[in-house]
Amino acid sequence: MGKISRRTMLGATGGLIAGGLLKTRADALAAEEGVARLQTTQADPTKVLGAPTSVLGQRAPGEQPRRQMGTPATTASSRTPIEQLQGIITPADLHFERHHAGVPAIDPDRYELLIHGMVDRPMTFTLDDLKRFPAESRLCFVECSGNGGAAYNRNAARERAPWQIDGLLSTSEWTGVLLSTLLREVRVDRGASWLLAEGGDAAVMSRSIPLEKALDDAMIAYGQNGEAIRPAQGYPARLLLPGWEGNAQVKWIRRLEISDRPSMTREETSKYTDPLADGTARQFSFVMDAKSIITFPAFPNVLPERGWWEITGLAWSGRGRITRVEVSTDGGRTWAPAQLQEPVLSKCTTRFRHIWNWDGGEALLMSRAIDETGYVQPDLETQIAARGAGSSYHYNTIRPWRVEADGRVFFAQGEGA
Amino acid sequence: MGKISRRTMLGATGGLIAGGLLKTRADALAAEEGVARLQTTQADPTKVLGAPTSVLGQRAPGEQPRRQMGTPATTASSRTPIEQLQGIITPADLHFERHHAGVPAIDPDRYELLIHGMVDRPMTFTLDDLKRFPAESRLCFVECSGNGGAAYNRNAARERAPWQIDGLLSTSEWTGVLLSTLLREVRVDRGASWLLAEGGDAAVMSRSIPLEKALDDAMIAYGQNGEAIRPAQGYPARLLLPGWEGNAQVKWIRRLEISDRPSMTREETSKYTDPLADGTARQFSFVMDAKSIITFPAFPNVLPERGWWEITGLAWSGRGRITRVEVSTDGGRTWAPAQLQEPVLSKCTTRFRHIWNWDGGEALLMSRAIDETGYVQPDLETQIAARGAGSSYHYNTIRPWRVEADGRVFFAQGEGA
Repeated sequence: MGKISRRTMLGATGGLIAGGLLKTRADALAAEEGVARLQTTQADPTKVLGAPTSVLGQRAPGEQPRRQMGTPATTASSRTPIEQLQGIITPADLHFERHHAGVPAIDPDRYELLIHGMVDRPMTFTLDDLKRFPAESRLCFVECSGNGGAAYNRNAARERAPWQIDGLLSTSEWTGVLLSTLLREVRVDRGASWLLAEGGDAAVMSRSIPLEKALDDAMIAYGQNGEAIRPAQGYPARLLLPGWEGNAQVKWIRRLEISDRPSMTREETSKYTDPLADGTARQFSFVMDAKSIITFPAFPNVLPERGWWEITGLAWSGRGRITRVEVSTDGGRTWAPAQLQEPVLSKCTTRFRHIWNWDGGEALLMSRAIDETGYVQPDLETQIAARGAGSSYHYNTIRPWRVEADGRVFFAQGEGA
Repeated sequence: MGKISRRTMLGATGGLIAGGLLKTRADALAAEEGVARLQTTQADPTKVLGAPTSVLGQRAPGEQPRRQMGTPATTASSRTPIEQLQGIITPADLHFERHHAGVPAIDPDRYELLIHGMVDRPMTFTLDDLKRFPAESRLCFVECSGNGGAAYNRNAARERAPWQIDGLLSTSEWTGVLLSTLLREVRVDRGASWLLAEGGDAAVMSRSIPLEKALDDAMIAYGQNGEAIRPAQGYPARLLLPGWEGNAQVKWIRRLEISDRPSMTREETSKYTDPLADGTARQFSFVMDAKSIITFPAFPNVLPERGWWEITGLAWSGRGRITRVEVSTDGGRTWAPAQLQEPVLSKCTTRFRHIWNWDGGEALLMSRAIDETGYVQPDLETQIAARGAGSSYHYNTIRPWRVEADGRVFFAQGEGA
């Protein structure tokens, strides 16, 4: 959150601007940023001519949200700073990343999607072909199935921020062509029931998808928040499976093979399958169950004084609309319905808010989401009873926060959930 | 849309990356962009390790949308390239700009909003104060009242793109505190009916706003698409008046003076008032009437072949929800209802789509929006009859496009609307 000093910026661009040397659009863009930073320390901005128009807006110098990550790595992830965001939209450059062999750089002019297997007419589609079809846009979340792992732990570290728990979650307005439209073109055979989705990255990410989902609301998406999908989210095109785990929504999609059985790829046998408490495992656990997290107050917030505070957070379900979010400030003894911010959309994040009068004592804050199927977000012990030691996926237990008497807030998994 | 050559990028960053010299997050960010560009020309991205995670996503090298403008100037505007966008969301860095003395650089730590005048308790609010109140988020458009001026002309130039006609229009998810909440704090006197809204820019932009709107859905917004509002859109806080003309939604808001009459500021006497055909003028024409524009096909598109094309565009109304958009491909002789993309939200843009089988002959494309009040977007002659020579504001006539037999598309105002 550092600020550029006035002197630095004056040296860097002030002279050029004053001298009228900045003529091109690129120069104007640089000048805009320079002038804006230069003027940050002005006591009265009404006495100073402001920055000119520019071809691309900049963030304010003191507002520089960043994806959160450890050491950059190609088989890694970066997380959305969900506690820094308002509403439900995630700016595209803050959308979480998860990739298994880095972000490929695909030439859109060479891009092709092959659809073959149990079809009458195997076809390839260029990016222009995909854009020629009738389009759909929808607001929905994309979430890594490993999101929430930090919450599945009776002794989770107290110093955990919302991004560390649920930052593998982002919401965008996606645009593309319904997969059902493309499947009509190739004419799927009777008897087909699955398809293999394969990515064009160096991991050749591969997942088996039931044909039923492909014919429902699946999409080949090429747009994200109005513009072209970003490279880290699958440019030039990805599979979008609203409400399902992120890894199945294969990015950089290059091939769909229609079949009558799942392909049992590495990513659904060695990974993305969930061992259960009874020694069996559940496979193809695609849907993201209802979940919610309070993003304020949360670690590392410190409430400076007692009184009215708005508890806020996000709720979402892969099965449809969120119908209710309940908030407890006493560790689950009593619950009150939170206000849901409109629009409440199917398979999309919903912002919830609950006004709370903090008396200055210790408090244990919780939220639980309920979706249109009646599913209720479970507590930790319920999920441990069902899952046992667990795997690394699909942890949607209640995320509690302890507010201490001095106002400090800590993650409190296991303290009473 | 130019691409960076492989050779250029190899020289610039390839050696550094290979040498493992990039260690910091900033370096990683630069490296990510460098690697991504470097690999654009790879024939098979599955054979090359992709770019690492990064703290801030980048656009693909070939996808570089830009705001459109003439010579940079401080009393000017830049326009959203609406024909390059899908869905309804405008990325924040592509939100149109309109300012009268440049973009001020306001220190958020010094920021204060004063509310005074006909109130019991004059108060100032810091940015933290504003954020302490219960928040609201809403998706809505902001539009300059001068948008569409190019359409109010029987002899408009044929070579006009959608951004030149309606690019002073953008849609965001705004977050802030309802103005009614703040007005409860200061306790507005009985008899008050207007307020003066004053900006902290060098133009000290000032407008009179009816108290009724302030108590309805007006907001002091500090968030835009999830993050802090951008400087060009009013950082750290602006007045948001959903559905009303942009200039009244005073950016960089610093003062609200409650009164029992309009203040008759320069911006509502010498400007932003509309002379009519009968010699009178209408003042305080705040609401943006229902409007629509086809963004594809439009100038400078060229349809390469006859056959099925999806006509698409945006419709919006400051009075509420769009209930219907009708499309004509024969210059208004026949109309068909377009498909409205969900969600259809009040005072927000709505994406419409209409599938069209082009027979290869000349065609005159039109769209007309109808909102929940029953208002129908008028044609040019109807508006000229009401407005006469007109002013510079509130032109919401039908925007027609001529498709020629060779596939070229031109703006066709006056050709039959």
